[in-house]
Amino acid sequence: MSLSSLNPDDWLCLKRIVRFGETDAAGVMHFHHLLRWCHEAWEESLDNYGLNASNIFPDVTLNTRDLEVALPIIHCEAKYKFPIKRGDRLDIKILPKKIDLNSFEVVTMFDCKGVNVARGILRHLSINAKTRKRCDLPESIEFWLEASSIARGLQPLI
Amino acid sequence: MSLSSLNPDDWLCLKRIVRFGETDAAGVMHFHHLLRWCHEAWEESLDNYGLNASNIFPDVTLNTRDLEVALPIIHCEAKYKFPIKRGDRLDIKILPKKIDLNSFEVVTMFDCKGVNVARGILRHLSINAKTRKRCDLPESIEFWLEASSIARGLQPLI
Amino acid sequence: MSLSSLNPDDWLCLKRIVRFGETDAAGVMHFHHLLRWCHEAWEESLDNYGLNASNIFPDVTLNTRDLEVALPIIHCEAKYKFPIKRGDRLDIKILPKKIDLNSFEVVTMFDCKGVNVARGILRHLSINAKTRKRCDLPESIEFWLEASSIARGLQPLI
Amino acid sequence: MSLSSLNPDDWLCLKRIVRFGETDAAGVMHFHHLLRWCHEAWEESLDNYGLNASNIFPDVTLNTRDLEVALPIIHCEAKYKFPIKRGDRLDIKILPKKIDLNSFEVVTMFDCKGVNVARGILRHLSINAKTRKRCDLPESIEFWLEASSIARGLQPLI
Repeated sequence: MSLSSLNPDDWLCLKRIVRFGETDAAGVMHFHHLLRWCHEAWEESLDNYGLNASNIFPDVTLNTRDLEVALPIIHCEAKYKFPIKRGDRLDIKILPKKIDLNSFEVVTMFDCKGVNVARGILRHLSINAKTRKRCDLPESIEFWLEASSIARGLQPLI
Repeated sequence: MSLSSLNPDDWLCLKRIVRFGETDAAGVMHFHHLLRWCHEAWEESLDNYGLNASNIFPDVTLNTRDLEVALPIIHCEAKYKFPIKRGDRLDIKILPKKIDLNSFEVVTMFDCKGVNVARGILRHLSINAKTRKRCDLPESIEFWLEASSIARGLQPLI
Repeated sequence: MSLSSLNPDDWLCLKRIVRFGETDAAGVMHFHHLLRWCHEAWEESLDNYGLNASNIFPDVTLNTRDLEVALPIIHCEAKYKFPIKRGDRLDIKILPKKIDLNSFEVVTMFDCKGVNVARGILRHLSINAKTRKRCDLPESIEFWLEASSIARGLQPLI
Repeated sequence: MSLSSLNPDDWLCLKRIVRFGETDAAGVMHFHHLLRWCHEAWEESLDNYGLNASNIFPDVTLNTRDLEVALPIIHCEAKYKFPIKRGDRLDIKILPKKIDLNSFEVVTMFDCKGVNVARGILRHLSINAKTRKRCDLPESIEFWLEASSIARGLQPLI
């Protein structure tokens, strides 16, 4: 895979349709699903970028159950600007950002018909899975962060 | 929309990638997500077939909050044959079947790399949303059931 | 812990209040949560009976991450008789049953104000976690199954 | 109900046991469940305080489906300090705070064995459910906010 052959739209711009089970009795999306969507968008971005996910997520069948590095979420937040409804077709933009040697955050923007309806942020810390002490980010995550930084330079995402 | 222009593969054959939050500490998909996937696959099928979902699902902003007909699930079941893991790319086949004037069921097959890994069934009853008595299936659901029956005649799905 | 000192009501009869996020835009409990409740009720029953859960569930900090035996769910089903709403106080009865040397099922009855509103069934298989071949049920599960069988003899649960 | 007869411990201090389906393949609680727990703790607090929830949450069977006032969440956030595992018995403290005439927030502290493991914040806006314009908080929420403020004066919660 050469970086130049990848269109950032494929791994930084995603889509999602809101489903019935994600609404509540008020008739709109129940708030906590948005944070789940953020994590799933992050995973989809890594997939689409071409990362080998077995270095990032524990896999019981690939002898990567006990990964050296874990990337737990230490902080998350979300802002809700407009109600989101079943059937809404969301345009999702991922804005990853390295914070320091041991952590990064991913801002996820959710638009519907050209209007920003919500935003979520997940902050990950890189730790040694055994000692649970801070460690350097995995190399593959470094690549992905750098590539997204370059992509953002090429085309403003917001 | 003319039926003949629709390829059944677009609304009876779907795809889904398993996400990290859908696993549990045993390292594989936690069982109850499969039933959620069944419902979401059903919704996606209706979308792709071209149904006006505001006749099927309550919509707080479209004056369809209080639909005449509701389609509650009265029975569901699932069989799990092989463990399903994060990153698995599932091929999903929808097999709808009319049971009688008031009810239908949707069998959903989940394959991974050509192997059937799980199966779910949702059975819906058609009721008057106010009296909660049985009533005829909505016309749009009848169309979708009939079209899927024809499609299955054309190409065996399993 | 002596079996005689345990009141079956403590570990076979549980309670749960339905929460807002468990409803959907139709105003009632979204169906798939019931299966989650079944599993959580099973876990609560094991806890209340006094089982050492680190023999049953993988625990990353107790060196039981790689348990010898796993108890995956191979089948589940549910029947829905009446709509369940936010705030409903559910009385939950657990009816465990050994099927054979390698499997058991748990029927979970959900009542609201004395009326049965739904029922769920989870069927577990006992497998060697590495070979994934059938094996005998863990001893602690055998005890729990036997105790529930005795308890049911003493007091009819339905 | 007289306020003086209520022990704040009953409606500001709650308990919860972490369940298997709330973990992920890393072996610990998957982050987004914490936000769900915050909302459920808020609901439990209102219940235990004695509020008539049919004024707060839409109820399809009580003619409160179309409530005048809705309390959507406009912001949420969470901090994770220590991993949370299946079986962990969490002590939950609710700290409600009025922000202005139209909004309030609820800080929820999660402790395990005397150690703070996580914290969540939900911020609600009070809006007219039809016009979706800001409006005064419902009276019952005002009472609950005031009572919690008094309770906190009596006994420091953190």
